[in-house]
Amino acid sequence: MGKVVKVGIIGFGTVGAGAAENLLKNHDVILERSGVDVQLVKIADKDITTDRGVQVPASLLTTNVDELIAEADIVVELIGGTTIAGDFILKALNAGKAVVTANKALLATRGAELFAAAEKNNCDLYYEASVAGGIPVIKALREGLVSNKIQRMYGIMNGTCNYILTRMEAEGAAFEPVLKDAQALGYAEANPSLDVDGFDTAHKAAILAGLAYGKWFGLEAVSVEGIRNITELDMTMAAQLGYRFKLLAVIKNIAGAVQISVAPTLIPANSMLGAISGVFNGVMIEGDTVGQTLFYGRGAGRDATASAVVADVTDVAMNIANNCVRRVPAFRAGKNDVPLVKIEDVTNRFYLRLTVKEQTGVMAAVTEVLAQYQISISSLMQPEGSSGDQVPLLIVTHATKEVAMQQAIKEIAQLDCVCGDVNMFRIEDI
Amino acid sequence: MGKVVKVGIIGFGTVGAGAAENLLKNHDVILERSGVDVQLVKIADKDITTDRGVQVPASLLTTNVDELIAEADIVVELIGGTTIAGDFILKALNAGKAVVTANKALLATRGAELFAAAEKNNCDLYYEASVAGGIPVIKALREGLVSNKIQRMYGIMNGTCNYILTRMEAEGAAFEPVLKDAQALGYAEANPSLDVDGFDTAHKAAILAGLAYGKWFGLEAVSVEGIRNITELDMTMAAQLGYRFKLLAVIKNIAGAVQISVAPTLIPANSMLGAISGVFNGVMIEGDTVGQTLFYGRGAGRDATASAVVADVTDVAMNIANNCVRRVPAFRAGKNDVPLVKIEDVTNRFYLRLTVKEQTGVMAAVTEVLAQYQISISSLMQPEGSSGDQVPLLIVTHATKEVAMQQAIKEIAQLDCVCGDVNMFRIEDI
Repeated sequence: MGKVVKVGIIGFGTVGAGAAENLLKNHDVILERSGVDVQLVKIADKDITTDRGVQVPASLLTTNVDELIAEADIVVELIGGTTIAGDFILKALNAGKAVVTANKALLATRGAELFAAAEKNNCDLYYEASVAGGIPVIKALREGLVSNKIQRMYGIMNGTCNYILTRMEAEGAAFEPVLKDAQALGYAEANPSLDVDGFDTAHKAAILAGLAYGKWFGLEAVSVEGIRNITELDMTMAAQLGYRFKLLAVIKNIAGAVQISVAPTLIPANSMLGAISGVFNGVMIEGDTVGQTLFYGRGAGRDATASAVVADVTDVAMNIANNCVRRVPAFRAGKNDVPLVKIEDVTNRFYLRLTVKEQTGVMAAVTEVLAQYQISISSLMQPEGSSGDQVPLLIVTHATKEVAMQQAIKEIAQLDCVCGDVNMFRIEDI
Repeated sequence: MGKVVKVGIIGFGTVGAGAAENLLKNHDVILERSGVDVQLVKIADKDITTDRGVQVPASLLTTNVDELIAEADIVVELIGGTTIAGDFILKALNAGKAVVTANKALLATRGAELFAAAEKNNCDLYYEASVAGGIPVIKALREGLVSNKIQRMYGIMNGTCNYILTRMEAEGAAFEPVLKDAQALGYAEANPSLDVDGFDTAHKAAILAGLAYGKWFGLEAVSVEGIRNITELDMTMAAQLGYRFKLLAVIKNIAGAVQISVAPTLIPANSMLGAISGVFNGVMIEGDTVGQTLFYGRGAGRDATASAVVADVTDVAMNIANNCVRRVPAFRAGKNDVPLVKIEDVTNRFYLRLTVKEQTGVMAAVTEVLAQYQISISSLMQPEGSSGDQVPLLIVTHATKEVAMQQAIKEIAQLDCVCGDVNMFRIEDI
């Protein structure tokens, strides 16, 4: 008996099928909770003949996006990519239709353009599923924690990376074979770069940072490193030190400026974030009033993503039914400009892995360079059982500016007794 | 420049002072994010002379609640208790004013009455802070996870109990001395019953169950046990088995009926819930679409509670500013009646602690009773180093109906070789 709100889904792939199924299967529970009769009226795709594993009336399927936009009150974009997807969203908004999307890459790169179109046309544009899949973290950040100045956020937001790192740690395995296995099992793409090189997490970090600080920073504001350089030895040494490697998004308010970075990072193994294993995601949000909070769940996959998409659809449907469109607008800019902190200017503790020649004077040479840059050492270890002409040397430092660390590493790499690159990872004590 | 919405706080105690400070200190960030100029206009208390550690203009303070209700658009009730607090809320609602409260006991016992008044007067009534303090779990449950049928919820929702259990485990200490210390440190009340006997958690469980299943069950629907019976030996044995004791709220959909219970429970030490230590709270929500999610943070205290109260105030203020009052009403009943499952009919694994005479035939006698009730044993242990005339015996069972377990325990307690009570705890494998 609730007001009818009509929904069209563009993109009948995995997530599109999940969202369709969720809307159909849980129609009644959504109606009971929201008071709105949310009806799936169209699904558009280039291919409407392949079986998607979900029963939908044939009359719902169309290859004509214009027809879908004309009929729907809410247009759900689930085709992905940053070109056609954006065009469809703009077309929907310009037709006065609300939009729900899970497209993090599009938002991180073309967010400002989409938000302007939503504002101009007085439409809602929601995107909960773009960050951390099924976890309602965007809602938490801008509604549940609305009264907080955000001091820090840490995110484990890529299930593929977390799955790989969890297995590397558990099995003492190297990156490449675990990646191959993850690909065979469908946990990693054939081209894994978007995930393992950190870009997917960076998209999400850019979105969270934008919402926390009222400025749509975009992808280029994020310092990005991937997880390819982590070795079995690093995993072992991290564990001995009480840490664990995670591909960590870090968003920090540093004296009014903001650090936004994604990098493989050592975090305490016994922390809540450290306990997040396998494909699960988690986002820690620290506010000035609430203190530390953590939001945990499945960050990807058909059904978890569908849960967030349909939550957005219902939120927008409630806005439409209650005549309060843009009650929570797509994005609200703050009145102050928020500068970025360059990663070089950030202070952290560091973990270094070097390969050195097995000869006297090596430690003296390396530590002398660190001392020159005022970098003080917390521990310096050679793993038990190291032998041969070249052996690993692990160093954990006290807090120092990254620029000093980078310069010291450059010099250390040029020492005669040091072979090959120096690998550097940040430590976050949460 | 946003629309002005006026807020009055009844109760200038710890949480009231925290909410006042949050509203004043973060006024601008709330305005930027919500578009509403949320103004604190009155604070009412019997005592307006004591220093509360927060600077408020003297003109805001009043002893006259009627004056506050007349002036405010949103009335925040933070005096606690189930009598006067309820009267003030009803008075505010009947005057057409929105209400925000943190009062779990009032909601659990008089919720239906308050919801009816809110509906009759077309007012909002929000209560995020009533469950798990600063964690926006009510918003997550009814908005972020709106498209999910809720299968299970587990809550660690009493910081006092979790603090005591964490210390008992870490220090190998008994309940009583740790409770005394917690009282001395201000983590436990002089009369600790509301916390350690499980009633506070039961209030919160009743609220979560009501929201999940669309029926306001109330406190009497909750099976409640406290943590006083846990001994150092139980802690040690649980750890050896890979478990950890938590005062756990369990809300489960069992074939269309609902279990709502609060009891000291063994949960896997390596689970996310198992990792929640000290005064922190966490709620695991499992939906049919999203799978497992977890929401973690501070469950009590001045500022964390204030964060949730002010989030509600802002939500309601946005409703008022956007002319969509009751967009998310205080409570929406489902159309189907949802029956309760009696705890006796629930199936679980159990951990038992007995004291037995040190003589032959004891194990045979005890296990024979269990066998009579078709209860199969997973392990049966006497702790290393047990000696004397009377020794402990620990039993872990496979899954069995609680009614069978209770009957078996009654018989076991009457055996000649068994001394004193048999202690029984449920095991939840999450």
